[in-house]
Amino acid sequence: MSAGTLYLIPVPLGAGSAPETVLPSPVLERIRPLSHFVVENAKSARAFLKAVGTAQPLQELQLAELNEHTPPDALERLLQPLRAGQDMGLVSEAGCPAVADPGADLVALAQREGIRVVPLVGPSSLLLSLMASGLNGQRFAFHGYLPAKEPERQKALRDLEAESRKRRQTQIFIETPYRNRQMLESLLQACQPSTRITIATDLTLPREMVLTRSVGQWKKQTPPDIERRPTVFLLLA
Amino acid sequence: MSAGTLYLIPVPLGAGSAPETVLPSPVLERIRPLSHFVVENAKSARAFLKAVGTAQPLQELQLAELNEHTPPDALERLLQPLRAGQDMGLVSEAGCPAVADPGADLVALAQREGIRVVPLVGPSSLLLSLMASGLNGQRFAFHGYLPAKEPERQKALRDLEAESRKRRQTQIFIETPYRNRQMLESLLQACQPSTRITIATDLTLPREMVLTRSVGQWKKQTPPDIERRPTVFLLLA
Repeated sequence: MSAGTLYLIPVPLGAGSAPETVLPSPVLERIRPLSHFVVENAKSARAFLKAVGTAQPLQELQLAELNEHTPPDALERLLQPLRAGQDMGLVSEAGCPAVADPGADLVALAQREGIRVVPLVGPSSLLLSLMASGLNGQRFAFHGYLPAKEPERQKALRDLEAESRKRRQTQIFIETPYRNRQMLESLLQACQPSTRITIATDLTLPREMVLTRSVGQWKKQTPPDIERRPTVFLLLA
Repeated sequence: MSAGTLYLIPVPLGAGSAPETVLPSPVLERIRPLSHFVVENAKSARAFLKAVGTAQPLQELQLAELNEHTPPDALERLLQPLRAGQDMGLVSEAGCPAVADPGADLVALAQREGIRVVPLVGPSSLLLSLMASGLNGQRFAFHGYLPAKEPERQKALRDLEAESRKRRQTQIFIETPYRNRQMLESLLQACQPSTRITIATDLTLPREMVLTRSVGQWKKQTPPDIERRPTVFLLLA
């Protein structure tokens, strides 16, 4: 018996967004017949799968959770349906699975076992923000979360700025939404006036906003309202 | 009069692929009413727009080219329709515009003038390959093309491997398709046996293949046929 395929399923960036607004229709068609899923959060994954309209009734789907609480030795077991020949979907909380979320470990294990892995097209806040930033798209680096506390944060930002200047590399990072305002303040304190900073907020959502300004320009204007709104930060020195 | 909006339009990764296979339907709806485009290559952009089915006849669309032959001082003029209140689409040759293509300069100029920039969801070979690699998706860097000649190439690969080890950072790069085989050979010579290397070929196409193996494993097996097939390379030490 041959192993199943692991499909990597992107989900909308805002809770409540309809899947068809951000997923191509062949991707929706791929998801519908699946009955086994590994998900970051069962409740929101069920809401997503309900909106997609799976072939099997929602209560008959097999959902296993994989998140920061999952012990590493539990990963093995999550692949069992694939080994038994079932196709399986990996669903993240928002955006693309295995990028900035715990799904990568499951994909690594699948790759190690020679299981076929198929990534499906969907929204990625990192990529959309990079596209719309106008910053260097030929060289860029994503760093996840930076230190939350000072003076570590200002130091991290100055290091990123120096590296950006040296390599002509766009630096991308994220913050917990309720600390977005503080992050922007830290950026404006830490960086040189000529450094360009992009704020990419609520991507693909009705209030989407992607603004690139130099630090000097940002300082002169009223800061945009980004508090508690999902935001990607980018800088290019 | 208010300025138009610059839409960043992704296109399929393989020539001849139908747009609806990789673009969500609201993205197709966004493209259809547009009549002004900046494109990397007029011929392939026309084929794409024909397949999308624009509201206006193909021969009435305004297509301006932006590619490596465009002089920097010509960029200004390309924004003219936006300043005059027209919406405009930026279309790359494959995948997402302004990521690893010359469109970023146009987006930068639009941002500088305060023109609204809206990135649309579509396929990105970089992001799809990262998702399916199982390598670190929390920290990664894209480097574009590496040096084509030895010994510069082996040195570049060893530097990337050292950096990957130091930062736990996935390193992503591309190669001209007819040099893919050589790139894989260089990788296997330059890197440590335990370093994982992903080969992501023909993404979203019928012959798609994403394989992650350690250098030691790659050396033991027949190399996959990647010559002249679009491929993204990833490594994690």
